[in-house]
Amino acid sequence: MKAGIKVFAPASVANVACGFDVLGFALNHPGDEIIARPRDTKGLEITRITGDQGKLPRKVEKNTAGFAAQALMNHVGCDMGIELEIHKKMPFGSGLGSSAASAAGAVVAVNELMGRPLTRRELLPFAVAGEQIADGAYHADNVAPSLLGGLILVRDNKTLDFHRIPTPKGLIAVVIYPHIEILTKDARNVIQENVPLNKLIVQTGNIAALVLGMIQADFDLISRALQDVVVEPQRANLIPHFYTVKESALDAGALGCSISGAGPSIFSLFNNTLQAEAAASAMQSIFAAEGIACDSFISPINSAGTIIY
Amino acid sequence: MKAGIKVFAPASVANVACGFDVLGFALNHPGDEIIARPRDTKGLEITRITGDQGKLPRKVEKNTAGFAAQALMNHVGCDMGIELEIHKKMPFGSGLGSSAASAAGAVVAVNELMGRPLTRRELLPFAVAGEQIADGAYHADNVAPSLLGGLILVRDNKTLDFHRIPTPKGLIAVVIYPHIEILTKDARNVIQENVPLNKLIVQTGNIAALVLGMIQADFDLISRALQDVVVEPQRANLIPHFYTVKESALDAGALGCSISGAGPSIFSLFNNTLQAEAAASAMQSIFAAEGIACDSFISPINSAGTIIY
Repeated sequence: MKAGIKVFAPASVANVACGFDVLGFALNHPGDEIIARPRDTKGLEITRITGDQGKLPRKVEKNTAGFAAQALMNHVGCDMGIELEIHKKMPFGSGLGSSAASAAGAVVAVNELMGRPLTRRELLPFAVAGEQIADGAYHADNVAPSLLGGLILVRDNKTLDFHRIPTPKGLIAVVIYPHIEILTKDARNVIQENVPLNKLIVQTGNIAALVLGMIQADFDLISRALQDVVVEPQRANLIPHFYTVKESALDAGALGCSISGAGPSIFSLFNNTLQAEAAASAMQSIFAAEGIACDSFISPINSAGTIIY
Repeated sequence: MKAGIKVFAPASVANVACGFDVLGFALNHPGDEIIARPRDTKGLEITRITGDQGKLPRKVEKNTAGFAAQALMNHVGCDMGIELEIHKKMPFGSGLGSSAASAAGAVVAVNELMGRPLTRRELLPFAVAGEQIADGAYHADNVAPSLLGGLILVRDNKTLDFHRIPTPKGLIAVVIYPHIEILTKDARNVIQENVPLNKLIVQTGNIAALVLGMIQADFDLISRALQDVVVEPQRANLIPHFYTVKESALDAGALGCSISGAGPSIFSLFNNTLQAEAAASAMQSIFAAEGIACDSFISPINSAGTIIY
């Protein structure tokens, strides 16, 4: 009997500025550790969760990792006994794709334990279905980068028509997670159902230019395109001091800065490590001065996605 | 004294499906012929316009080509005498960028006659200002491809931040121009000022994928992305039989089909010449059966833009 499989599934930044609901990228850290082990009793069980302060459901069908792994096992017709350990090593409710990481990690670990019946890309729908348990929505802009790495465009969530967009070397993300709570419900409710046509024009021009800038390694173009004129202005006031923090990132040389996922995390992109480090300090100290603790993460775009180690 | 300069400025397709107001490409034909000649009297005069059934203004400051050329001459501080001939060799009010072609042709011809003080790219603002006389709006999605060739993304019309998107070899456009009149006013008025957020998400996903598909020569992706869920449904009923004609293009193998500019022309893209020819016939015969005459044009993406010949 195999000893088991341990994987690391990375955090991700979704809603990348003009790419609301369609663009996400993976970070090198933080992320979740998932372990899948064979056991004698048939079926799937979650035997251990750490780092969640007891907040995550232990039942397989209610847990994102459990649901994703079970859906995969059902699809493959697996009659093994498998136990899952989930070690949350990243904050959740932070806008960093925590549930997506757990779901991605679970399908990779379980697929590997079963002898790898599916390819990495084929695992995506199961991980997306897992994240849906936590999130309510069937979308892949966190799961796909967490699973596959890179900057991912999800053209269509229904058919999971997704594509990896080449990114230039030297692109570095800074993510600041202020320890405040935003309810997903609130993050959704502040967004108007309608968008003025002129903002749609700006947003489509920017996302097209962002793709082109990434492929052509044109940092100036990336910078001009890395703007969200639609959702960011509506969600910004859920995050205290957002614009001050954003300004400090831009002052430090950020190509752009916006909300990660549904927040409260804030991401910015750089093409210079020293600027990234200076920006991380500046952004953190603004929150600190207001008595808000926060974590900061500096990472290139993670091109590996979930890894077995 | 120079004999004069003759240029050909091509028609263009703007509002390329999901690229409303931001994407346009040039055709090899039809197009306008503009001639600039030196003359003894200082200043600019339009001495001849053909092919317009007397409809275009003869006064320099009210004519797109005249206005554009004059703006250029003023900028350069030109004290030559120049006369312009404008030979309209394409329909206007057709959605094929007729006024943009005249403006592009005029600035290239006059710039050349003056000894080429500006580069081709530097001519763009003058041509855009010329088209604005006819169109009311300051936008470059017809002028830029007509002037420079290729598939052009205009990220931002205000700053004319535009970029050429590489297109795959073998990409062929079919444009059908049914002889019906759509008033620009009507074409604008049918568009709602607001767009549902879920359509913005679809549109941004598609335009990002379209750019990626073009660069990666992925015709399947181009086909899935070449959709307009925002403006086309609102303008379609200004063009009789639009959906029947579109269906016939798709049946013939089109990668996609939508309205060219503000219509009534309809464009479709192909990666197979025989399919393009078959589609052109099929589309034309639908209009013919309804007693609507039309022209059809088959052309690769024109990469040269305005040429001196």
